Amino acid sequence: MKLDQSMKIGIVGLGLIGGSYAQGLTAEGFKVGAVDVRRESVDFALENGWISDGRSSVDKDYIGQFDLIVFALYPKTFIRWIENYQQYLKPGTILTDVTGVKSGVVETVQKMLRPDLEFIAAHPMAGRESSGVENARKEVFYGANYIVIPTEKNTPEAVELCEDLGRVLHFKNISVLTPEKHDEMIAFLSQLTHCIAVSLMTCREAGHLAEYSGDSFRDLTRIAKINDEMWSELFLLNKEQLLGQMDLFEQAFCKLRQYIQADDRDAIREMMRNSTRQRVLFDKKGD
Amino acid sequence: MKLDQSMKIGIVGLGLIGGSYAQGLTAEGFKVGAVDVRRESVDFALENGWISDGRSSVDKDYIGQFDLIVFALYPKTFIRWIENYQQYLKPGTILTDVTGVKSGVVETVQKMLRPDLEFIAAHPMAGRESSGVENARKEVFYGANYIVIPTEKNTPEAVELCEDLGRVLHFKNISVLTPEKHDEMIAFLSQLTHCIAVSLMTCREAGHLAEYSGDSFRDLTRIAKINDEMWSELFLLNKEQLLGQMDLFEQAFCKLRQYIQADDRDAIREMMRNSTRQRVLFDKKGD
Repeated sequence: MKLDQSMKIGIVGLGLIGGSYAQGLTAEGFKVGAVDVRRESVDFALENGWISDGRSSVDKDYIGQFDLIVFALYPKTFIRWIENYQQYLKPGTILTDVTGVKSGVVETVQKMLRPDLEFIAAHPMAGRESSGVENARKEVFYGANYIVIPTEKNTPEAVELCEDLGRVLHFKNISVLTPEKHDEMIAFLSQLTHCIAVSLMTCREAGHLAEYSGDSFRDLTRIAKINDEMWSELFLLNKEQLLGQMDLFEQAFCKLRQYIQADDRDAIREMMRNSTRQRVLFDKKGD
Repeated sequence: MKLDQSMKIGIVGLGLIGGSYAQGLTAEGFKVGAVDVRRESVDFALENGWISDGRSSVDKDYIGQFDLIVFALYPKTFIRWIENYQQYLKPGTILTDVTGVKSGVVETVQKMLRPDLEFIAAHPMAGRESSGVENARKEVFYGANYIVIPTEKNTPEAVELCEDLGRVLHFKNISVLTPEKHDEMIAFLSQLTHCIAVSLMTCREAGHLAEYSGDSFRDLTRIAKINDEMWSELFLLNKEQLLGQMDLFEQAFCKLRQYIQADDRDAIREMMRNSTRQRVLFDKKGD
């Protein structure tokens, strides 16, 4: 199955990411509908021409028309939605998602899913520090990373369709990972960084220092403005992986602290040179 | 004493910051000379028209002509320079600096200084991840913070001159702090953030993850590309303050780890909401 403009695509959950999918897909010539419990979100997307139609409750006939559905919900809400409403979907419908954690989500959904439906997991690695459809914009995906997370239950056709979706939305790197590899990687690259930012921002009274701060503090705390409902759920769903990555970081931090305590300048410099070498691998243009 | 264009300004140390001072001051109509042991740095600044003259060794007559000298050297090199060469300076010359740590520097220099010279400390809070005069650019100061750090040995006139220097270079916030307050603030806002970035970048093998990384990891490790010679010296000069700030951070990080371990979602969310509230105080336009 190929992604083509005759397909009707549904977005369930019109928040920052769902709204950006809607805008991006409509801009690329697809017919897009949406469901969100918040009436204002549906109206906002309609007024902006990001969807051709939408509902603020789950209407059997409405959701039965989609060929492809993107779930942009929090993980547990997504699972409950499938439990309650998969009965209304058209046979052959492909489902995908944007969930930031895959273990405990992909397996659960695939296990309960009707055999004539297929769920192929994806993770668009993009976001902003503000939430809600009002802050959505399709450019958030341009040049970002997109990961497809198939299991043995998926067909090559669905994997390809899911990759196409990433391409159409202008993601740059499209890669494939297992749920386990995905969650280990995300624990380090994304969840640990949010833990660090939150800890740095809350470890002391700092508001009076704002006028002195340079770019480094601003950069390290940009993500300290955080959606607590979503991130706390993601942290706990990926708890073991996250705790493991937090321990690795803390060990390195304590080692550096010991070097400083001991006035061991050579060891500090060696650690900094290693840091510089590692960071170069992450350079990208304009960085 | 007012900063005016009849003054001849000397820059000692033509690196990233010294070079940016030279470029910025020349662009504002001042006559600027420079001394740097690296001949290529002096030539580069001359060829770019950032200085009208320069030397690659300390020439008695040459350095005796300046009314104001900006020392853009590493702290210990700065102190040694004063020891060795202050004898050649013209009576009444005002000295200032750009050093990132003030305790152990300001007092030391002011104590040994000839009574007919005055040293007023300053800290331009700006930088880049690359060093050397070849990476200098005057725009690095635009909109950044500039701190003047007077002691009881300073005259109001020198403090004002030093503030003028910051204004001329287009810094946005110009403020005044004691050496102790400055170093405590810098330990938290700047040194701790560099410790975190270096620890994050070196805590595990990560190069193969570059293609998956989102903006958050890039933001948190931007400063992990670090000048090890300079920063190790700054860390150790400010050791006690830095260790104290590292401990505050580690306590917050461990607290968050405990909440996650205990599945205490309410406590995690409360910490995140506090983080969001604190971060708002640091917002600036376009952030």
